[in-house]
Order: sequence, then C-alpha cells, then structure tokens
Amino acid sequence: MIFTEEMKKRTEEADVCVRSYLPEIKGHAKMLAESMDYSVGAGGKRLRPVMMKAAFDMCGGQGDIVKPFMAAIEFIHNYSLVHDDLPEMDNDMLRRGVPSTHAKYGSGMAVLAGDGLLNYAFETALKSTEVSYDKDYGHILDALKVLAGKSGIYGMAGGQALDVEADKKDLELSEEEILFVYENKTAALLQASLVCGAILAGASDKDCDTLMRAGYCLGVAFQLQDDILDVTGSETEIGKPVGSDERNGKKTYLSYLGFDAAEKKQEELSAEAAALVRSIYETEDGERREAGEFLEGLIESLVKRRK
Amino acid sequence: MIFTEEMKKRTEEADVCVRSYLPEIKGHAKMLAESMDYSVGAGGKRLRPVMMKAAFDMCGGQGDIVKPFMAAIEFIHNYSLVHDDLPEMDNDMLRRGVPSTHAKYGSGMAVLAGDGLLNYAFETALKSTEVSYDKDYGHILDALKVLAGKSGIYGMAGGQALDVEADKKDLELSEEEILFVYENKTAALLQASLVCGAILAGASDKDCDTLMRAGYCLGVAFQLQDDILDVTGSETEIGKPVGSDERNGKKTYLSYLGFDAAEKKQEELSAEAAALVRSIYETEDGERREAGEFLEGLIESLVKRRK
Repeated sequence: MIFTEEMKKRTEEADVCVRSYLPEIKGHAKMLAESMDYSVGAGGKRLRPVMMKAAFDMCGGQGDIVKPFMAAIEFIHNYSLVHDDLPEMDNDMLRRGVPSTHAKYGSGMAVLAGDGLLNYAFETALKSTEVSYDKDYGHILDALKVLAGKSGIYGMAGGQALDVEADKKDLELSEEEILFVYENKTAALLQASLVCGAILAGASDKDCDTLMRAGYCLGVAFQLQDDILDVTGSETEIGKPVGSDERNGKKTYLSYLGFDAAEKKQEELSAEAAALVRSIYETEDGERREAGEFLEGLIESLVKRRK
Repeated sequence: MIFTEEMKKRTEEADVCVRSYLPEIKGHAKMLAESMDYSVGAGGKRLRPVMMKAAFDMCGGQGDIVKPFMAAIEFIHNYSLVHDDLPEMDNDMLRRGVPSTHAKYGSGMAVLAGDGLLNYAFETALKSTEVSYDKDYGHILDALKVLAGKSGIYGMAGGQALDVEADKKDLELSEEEILFVYENKTAALLQASLVCGAILAGASDKDCDTLMRAGYCLGVAFQLQDDILDVTGSETEIGKPVGSDERNGKKTYLSYLGFDAAEKKQEELSAEAAALVRSIYETEDGERREAGEFLEGLIESLVKRRK
C-alpha cells in the first residue's frame, strides 16, 4: 500500500459519501439547504469520515452501515466551523480560502445552517437502520450515544465553551484547563470517529476502549504539534506568523510544559496512538491489516505534519 | 377530571422531569451548563412534554421510556428560542420577563448554549434505552427519527429559515409560503410531541398517522388564532399592540384568507384535531380515556385561547 495513494482514494470516497447525504437544494427551505451545502463545501479534508471508515474496515466491518455515520460526523465538524466563524465567536470572514458561511449568507442564516447541520447529522446517522442487514439496532444506538456524547457539553461543545469563555474574558487558562480544551475541542470528535467505526463493525468492548484511548492520544498530540509548529515552523509552511501564540499572550500546553518536555510528550502520545492501533490489527491479515496499516499511517501523518 | 387541575399537575410533573435531565453545573464547561440551565429556565409552559406524555398515556404507554424524550423535546424547543432571540435573528433582550440568554451570557455563549441544548436533546433521548424494559430499540429508533426529522430542515428549522429569509430580505410571502412556515415552524414540533409519545407507547401505525394529522391541525389552528387575536384581541390580553401585523405590513395567513374564512378555517382545524384525538380514546376506558380527555381539553384550550 502506498499511503498517499490510499489516502487520496479514501478521501475521495468519503467526500462522495458525505455529499450523497446532503439535503436537496429545493423547496421552501431552499436557502437553508443551500447554506448547509455550502458549509460542508469543497476542499474539506474529510479527515473524520476517513478515520471512521478505516477503523470500521480494520475491525472487520461489512456493508454500508457506517456510511450515514461518516456523513454525520462530517456534518457535526462543519456545523462547529460555521458557528466558530460567526461574528460573536472568531469573526472569520474566510474559510478554506472562500467566504465563510455568514460572510456569504448573513449571520442569521449561518446560525440556522449550523443548527440545520447539527440536527441533520442525527437525521443522517439514523438512516443507518435502513442499511443494517441484521437489524443490529443495539450497535446503532451505541454508536449514536458516542457520536452525541463526544459532540456535546461532555465533548466538543464543552471544550469550545471554555475556549470561548477564556477569549471573551481574557482569562489565562491553567495547564489543566488547556488540556481540557485539547481533549474536548479536538480529541473528542477524533475519538468518536474511531469508536463509532469500531462499534458499527461489531468490535469488542476492549477494542473500542483501545481506540477511545488512541483517539485521545492522537487529539492531544495533534494540538501539541500545533503549539510546537507555532514556535519552530516556517511562516510559509504553517500559513500564520511564527510565535503568534506567545506574542498574543496566549497560553498553550507547550508554554506550561516547556519546549523540550512538550516535544517529548508529543512523541510519546503519537507513539502510543500508533501502538494502540497496531495492537488491534497486528494479528489480522488481508483487508483488515491493510486498513490498520493505513490508519496507523494516517495518525503518523497528522502528528508529524510540518504545517 | 377538572382540566385546570390536571393541567397544573401534569405541567409540574413535566417540569420536574425536564429539569432532572439538565447537565450538572460543574466542571470546566460550567458556564455552558449554567447557560443551558438558564435557557431551559423557569416559567416555561412545558407544553410539548405535557402533550407527549398525554399521548403516551392515551396510547397505553407504561414505564419511564417516554421521560428522556419529554426532556429532549423541551430542550429542542428552548434551543430554538435561544437562537431566535440572538441579535442577528429577532434581537430580543427579554424572554419570559427576564434577560434572554444572549443578554445574560453574551452572544457567543448563547450560540453555544443553543448548540449544547440541541445536541443534548439527542444525548438525553438516547437515555431511553436505559429505562426500556423489553429492549424495544425499534420504537426508540423510530421515535428518534420523528424527533430529529420534525426539528430539522424538513421541520422546525426549515420553517424558521423561510421566516428569517423573508424578514431579512423584506420579502412578501405567498399564501403557500406562509402555510409552510406555520406547518413547520409551529406544527412540526407539536406533531413530534404527539407522535413520539404514541410510538414509545407502542401505538399502531394508524394511530401514529392520526396523531401526525392532529398535530398538523393543531399547529396551523394555533397560528391562525395568533392572526385572529392580532385583529380582535385586547392589547392587555395579548401583550402586544392589536393590529401590529397589519401595520408592519406583515402578511399572515389571515390576510390571504380574509377574516371570516380564517375564523372558519381555524374552527374546522380545531374541531378536526379534537375529533382525531377522540377517535383514538373513545373506545378506551380508565386511565387511557382520562389521558385522552385531558389531551382533547389541552388542544381546545390552545386553539380557543384569548391571548
């Protein structure tokens, strides 16, 4: 398997899958459908559905039951971007090089587009009952619980809330609080990607727990790599001025750990995530092993990225 | 049964039920929990959970399986109010006589409080698997589909989107478009209340269809009563200047039908909603009949209200 080719193929498949579930742009709520479609947009990396599908394949999943969940997690990721970009949040007028949803459709419609996508994520995930061969409703409900749990107040929304509160009040977050933001704002949805894929494949509780921990390690390592690149990266590569966190007086996990300890921690977490994934696929062969090797490669590409 | 007493009792029960599912106000996402709690607030009528429980009882439901769904639909109703009140939407600083969520917590946190409530609605509804005696996962999934479907782009959010678009662009809606707003912005969540209650009670498809139509009639009649009160009501009773729709140049369903036809239509829809509910309980006795009579009384109180 050549990783970059497999990545390209799997990203294209995920993109087609996600788009196939978008609401048709017609009827009296046409503008809402259009703004939702626009928000899910072109150029997204589809990282979460790609991870979910790889975990599903690695755990021996068969059939299409994972597809509605792949679309659902991408809709949740995109709703969070639309609301993050709003004037009362980060006030970003651009996203992926094009006008953000509120810049194009106005803030009122952008609030609704985000709401519409979050709601539609659950509508879409529920369609998995239609492609479930053996009425494994228990698995679908378990996967829904992980998806909803890791997206809400005890996951992404909770992490986001502390981040927003700190920004608005100019609070300096403690080390524990910063770790909470990394764990929830970033890691939670990566955990949901891996674990929903595993649950829908019928994986054991042990393998689901292993992937929950792997997603945690990956998410925190990913954010630590952000902190590291802010210090060491080249401005051309990372697309923003180097050292901007420090100049903005923004505390990061790195600023508490110090550079050397942060780099060491990042390497440890990355290695742990990869080893956890390997522990699941190393006794397998054929397609399951290939999917596992791809997933391990994907994790490495994320935690070792230079931008 | 004395209706007002039963209404008081059932409203208190619904209020206790809804509050029992709210997230605890603690931890690093404490402010999000607090703003969600505040949004669900004191003084809500809890109309939707009361309707859901009455439909559940009328259809012979047993046990606690309906409770997480009662809380869920109230969370969805409240998230829509929080986002409706935002500056980019209706910009209302007051709700139920106290500062609206964004007035109290800022717009950024209010966006997150609404997101948090919508997401938490699904997390909560999924808790019904824990109080389901006979693993009736099929019913839970069917009720989730109705809840999600009637809240999103093909329900409440779709109706809301057309309303927002018309307001922002100063569009004059056609009769068909106004009816679409009434059907979706108002009726959809009432339909979900009745039908989720019925599904969770194990009602027949026929009874679920009957209640879907009853919810439609109720929702449109409710909105028509709004239009009628805007013309005939006393300012003291309805709490806003009489004739404000006409003065604001805002088209209503009444302005297309004319006053007499609107009143006739409102009476027909109200009578149909009541008759549909009656058709389900009239062959029952005991608790099921009592719940049906209460539900019919509740519908009458809503469509004949003077404010």
